[in-house]
Amino acid sequence: MIYKSPSYQKIYVLGAGAVGCFFGGMLARAGHEVTFIARPERSEALNSLGLEMDCKVFHETIQVKASSELSTLKDADLVLLSVKSLDTARTLAQVKSILPSEAVILSLQNGVANIDIASKMIANPVYAAVVYVAAGMIGQSTMKHHGRGELLVGSLGTASPANNENLEEICKLFEGASVPCSIAPQIKRDMWLKFLVNCSFNAISGIGQISYGEMVKSSGIVKMIEEITKEFLAIAALEDVNISMSEALTANDSIATTMVTQVSSTAQDLAKGKMTEIDFLNGYIVELGQRYGVPTPYNQSVYALVKMMESKIK
Amino acid sequence: MIYKSPSYQKIYVLGAGAVGCFFGGMLARAGHEVTFIARPERSEALNSLGLEMDCKVFHETIQVKASSELSTLKDADLVLLSVKSLDTARTLAQVKSILPSEAVILSLQNGVANIDIASKMIANPVYAAVVYVAAGMIGQSTMKHHGRGELLVGSLGTASPANNENLEEICKLFEGASVPCSIAPQIKRDMWLKFLVNCSFNAISGIGQISYGEMVKSSGIVKMIEEITKEFLAIAALEDVNISMSEALTANDSIATTMVTQVSSTAQDLAKGKMTEIDFLNGYIVELGQRYGVPTPYNQSVYALVKMMESKIK
Repeated sequence: MIYKSPSYQKIYVLGAGAVGCFFGGMLARAGHEVTFIARPERSEALNSLGLEMDCKVFHETIQVKASSELSTLKDADLVLLSVKSLDTARTLAQVKSILPSEAVILSLQNGVANIDIASKMIANPVYAAVVYVAAGMIGQSTMKHHGRGELLVGSLGTASPANNENLEEICKLFEGASVPCSIAPQIKRDMWLKFLVNCSFNAISGIGQISYGEMVKSSGIVKMIEEITKEFLAIAALEDVNISMSEALTANDSIATTMVTQVSSTAQDLAKGKMTEIDFLNGYIVELGQRYGVPTPYNQSVYALVKMMESKIK
Repeated sequence: MIYKSPSYQKIYVLGAGAVGCFFGGMLARAGHEVTFIARPERSEALNSLGLEMDCKVFHETIQVKASSELSTLKDADLVLLSVKSLDTARTLAQVKSILPSEAVILSLQNGVANIDIASKMIANPVYAAVVYVAAGMIGQSTMKHHGRGELLVGSLGTASPANNENLEEICKLFEGASVPCSIAPQIKRDMWLKFLVNCSFNAISGIGQISYGEMVKSSGIVKMIEEITKEFLAIAALEDVNISMSEALTANDSIATTMVTQVSSTAQDLAKGKMTEIDFLNGYIVELGQRYGVPTPYNQSVYALVKMMESKIK
């Protein structure tokens, strides 16, 4: 190898929700220097109590560094971007002048819009991760892990140079911290497959405050997920992502069977009285549908209902 | 007048929910002999405590008779049929051999299927009432009235002889008890207009446990109600009921503005862990859509979600 290996000494988790705490926590547990950027209440709790990781295969409290000051990002080598999709633009606007130009950004977020948003706002290399993990926060400093926890990483090309050096280093980093991580040659497609699963399950689980396993016991819901999926695939094709119906249904099924007791992040947000990411999930399909003139009644239905439930909590 | 006026000495309320208790209570309050047929818990409460009518313009407790025995119907002159739509067939099968042949049935129920079901099961004259009242039960013996409370009555022709004698008597009875009541020459159309309003509001209010006034503050919901309405009107036309879009939207609007704080009976049922009437509301539109080969995605979405929420409480 002739390239100078990038060394990620200073790792930041920007947005310390369940996903940020799981992956950042795994790195911290493996001995890396990880700082969690969070709102004051959470960063104080993490600093004083540590991050309690209640995982499937271990239960440990990890001493971590946390801060509510974005200015600490000035020495960042790697940033795990794990804020809610609706906070991406605002957060990056705030850190744009603070981030070192060589800092690498890895987006662990839902939806397919974040890489574009980030790449337009900052000059740093931005990579995409497709995250499969079932986890939730309990209180301010406990992360409860329900299952899975692997990463697919890649470059969207337009977003960053097709340079695999960073991706290889990212994989090495996570693999060394017991997080399965591989480079996906077709990351865009993988992102859309994950996005599909989010569109199929998140809203309905949120509307009904119901687990994935319970949801699919209802025959009308299975039918509805199929219709949501059909609309989704028509939009995906227009975005140059071709996924077959059988591949899509397999992806949906695997969630219903591997995450039986999980409720969606949308359900968790609504239960906590927080805004959801629905604008970036079914809402984004509805938006693209309007742009392309393609009807998306099933996506529109669940989108409108989640927005109504958000409006109740405001 | 040369006809012998039918005299409704013995009036029965078959199904003592909020609608039955409001209209039956108004008749009892005006001095009529009214017996409420209900489950043992409710009939015992009504017998011992009376019916507390917490109405917009008065608040009184009325001494009433109640029973859980269907056999008491053997001397019925008039039966206000106010069981849930899903109980119509089962209940009528049980009272078929008990009811005197001249007893008149007035259905105060939601949906448009009950008159047909009743007329096929019993030989008695069955009339339809379109009910506009906002009310709910609190505990076993208190009926809380939120607004309105008028009746449109009529004959569906196929269901009963086009004989207005009974209808005139019914109007006289209710008008004498401070309940506005008129004969609707096009009762089928009025039933479908009420049915439309139920399809527009019941499921969404139930899914979100949200009042009609709050619901329509959400622009996505206003759009969704329009789409539900479009599908509904296409089905109605195939059932020989022609309602224009502007007439339909006016009917929807009038509910959102006259029943601002009301939540639907579907919402009340779900909150109490009871089965809803959704099979006879959006579910019936979905069923007719399948029969006619007309897509009804918006009705199907809210139908599937309410069925899912019912399945949670079973």
